[in-house]
Amino acid sequence: MLNRTLTKIRPLDRDAMDAARKHHKQLAIPEDSLGRLHDLGIRLAGISGNPRPCIKDAAVITMAADHGVAAQGVSLFPQEVTCEMVANFMRGGAAINVLARHFGIRLTVVDIGVAGVLPDIEMAPDPSLRLVRARIADGTADMTAGPAMTRSQAEAAVETGIRVFEEEYARGLDALGTGDMGIANTTASAAVVAAILGCDPSEVVNRGTGIDDEGLKNKADVVARSLERNRPDASDPLDVLAKVGGLEIGGIAGAILGACARRVPVVIDGFISTAAALLAVGFNAAVKDYLFAGHRSAVEGHALMLDALGIEPLVDLGMRLGEGTGATYGLAILGSAGAVATQMLTFAEAAVSQPSEG
Amino acid sequence: MLNRTLTKIRPLDRDAMDAARKHHKQLAIPEDSLGRLHDLGIRLAGISGNPRPCIKDAAVITMAADHGVAAQGVSLFPQEVTCEMVANFMRGGAAINVLARHFGIRLTVVDIGVAGVLPDIEMAPDPSLRLVRARIADGTADMTAGPAMTRSQAEAAVETGIRVFEEEYARGLDALGTGDMGIANTTASAAVVAAILGCDPSEVVNRGTGIDDEGLKNKADVVARSLERNRPDASDPLDVLAKVGGLEIGGIAGAILGACARRVPVVIDGFISTAAALLAVGFNAAVKDYLFAGHRSAVEGHALMLDALGIEPLVDLGMRLGEGTGATYGLAILGSAGAVATQMLTFAEAAVSQPSEG
Repeated sequence: MLNRTLTKIRPLDRDAMDAARKHHKQLAIPEDSLGRLHDLGIRLAGISGNPRPCIKDAAVITMAADHGVAAQGVSLFPQEVTCEMVANFMRGGAAINVLARHFGIRLTVVDIGVAGVLPDIEMAPDPSLRLVRARIADGTADMTAGPAMTRSQAEAAVETGIRVFEEEYARGLDALGTGDMGIANTTASAAVVAAILGCDPSEVVNRGTGIDDEGLKNKADVVARSLERNRPDASDPLDVLAKVGGLEIGGIAGAILGACARRVPVVIDGFISTAAALLAVGFNAAVKDYLFAGHRSAVEGHALMLDALGIEPLVDLGMRLGEGTGATYGLAILGSAGAVATQMLTFAEAAVSQPSEG
Repeated sequence: MLNRTLTKIRPLDRDAMDAARKHHKQLAIPEDSLGRLHDLGIRLAGISGNPRPCIKDAAVITMAADHGVAAQGVSLFPQEVTCEMVANFMRGGAAINVLARHFGIRLTVVDIGVAGVLPDIEMAPDPSLRLVRARIADGTADMTAGPAMTRSQAEAAVETGIRVFEEEYARGLDALGTGDMGIANTTASAAVVAAILGCDPSEVVNRGTGIDDEGLKNKADVVARSLERNRPDASDPLDVLAKVGGLEIGGIAGAILGACARRVPVVIDGFISTAAALLAVGFNAAVKDYLFAGHRSAVEGHALMLDALGIEPLVDLGMRLGEGTGATYGLAILGSAGAVATQMLTFAEAAVSQPSEG
């Protein structure tokens, strides 16, 4: 399934982009005065193959999982919080619920590897909120002592991401946002990034939920020891994911690959989603053209990852929460670019005089 | 009416802000991890007096007017475009229509001083789109030859802005966005800014709709000659508005003052709206606390104005269109901050474990 998905990912449709570019030049405004909205609209055309791309339905898929490395004291919060936050998502009371509702975006939460027992919450019948139970393991193993998971678990995580994306696609989907929940997952993500980009752990570890200087030193040490112990092969994304990744990181990478195979644009969230995007690009370099960065996270190391991907974030609100919260802003802006591409009148249609020169 | 409005503008409600600050600290997230959303929510509390401020109804008021100074060749576009674009607004085909619809924002377009005859367009019965005919004059006079308007016209423009705001407020309004339409209005706005901030015209003139280097030199010269000819009194906003302003600039300033008097937050758009905001702050310094900058415009000189007001833009998408387009993004983000303040669960409500330290 993974290989079948990878072979379906194609380069952007240059003809659709040329047609979109031409259309944008005819809109009844001073040339290029909508700035990045033009670029977004043209890239949406290249992704979808439609010169007038419209984003009607958008969804955030938030993948939740636990991490054995939490035992190394890398987070301020106890591991139970992952499970408790999934319950909060089901109740509709978390930031991602609130922001997704605000922007008219569906939310699908996936238990792909939470450690605890999810409480039995009666979910309101709400087509815009869905829980998928697809647990591969009760969290990963502690990567300082050995690989976080087996290679087949890593593959299962990516394929779960593809499958959940396909379910969302079947419901109607024009743009995907990604999100994460998992205590200690900035540590696993930092290890993934250090492995792929070959940078020093100190460049990509961060304060996560708010650890102090000593905690930060410990976190860098934990990442360094995990890489030392497992020696992941940077050229093999499944190897990196299995040895120092996380189940939700694999699931997000899979959802991204699934979206690219269906020519659906992807708005990634912050640090964890961007680590997953680096893995996805490792599977197929064409993925890069389908990616938009929802926001610049305040998490240290995020900027370096965006630079590696060569993508410019859409907003910078100083957020560092995850869950997919940053992706909602990107989806709203991407949707606005689609609206401009499909609903604005041209000079001719609006009977507006053209400039005298220039 | 203007004076009555000015006396109603009060400082922020510090008690409501303290209560809001306390509430934000109890939300089930790592402390302050929603970045600017916390600051926005707390300021919304101070503006509205409600510790849990909600933005249900938002509207953009777009003021349209013509400028006698257009005769000096400061724009690429002929003056007719102002009138034609108002017709485009009425048809629902302009960028501001599209973006306001996308974000669920009402749009009210005001002919406060267009020069031509508005075509007789049958407007669809749409509660989210309204045209107000409140023309004070068929455009301003050429400010290189004398004052753009009389002092009583300037006062009428500001009072029209207050009145239109009051009509919107009566329909239900939790946040206001401002917008403009008017060929040559970046020239008038540059003159207003140069007069108020005492800076050199070359620092605040810009390419507007896309003029070249020679056009830019002419524009700076036109602004310098207008200031020289009229010598506006920087300490008297009505004098500045009358001598080198525009009817839509006065209307926007009035709408801002009206909103502040009703404790409604205001998201300003780009160059023209920010010039109007500088006038509004000149009437009453407390206005500053009610202002949010929708975006950083790509128009040269805008950054300098935001610095003078001490406000940080919410997005930077390289836009330079006006109409209120940049304000729509700010309203959407402000609305999201209100949603966070009113809909998110606390640690206790969501039964989520608190951090072990810090």
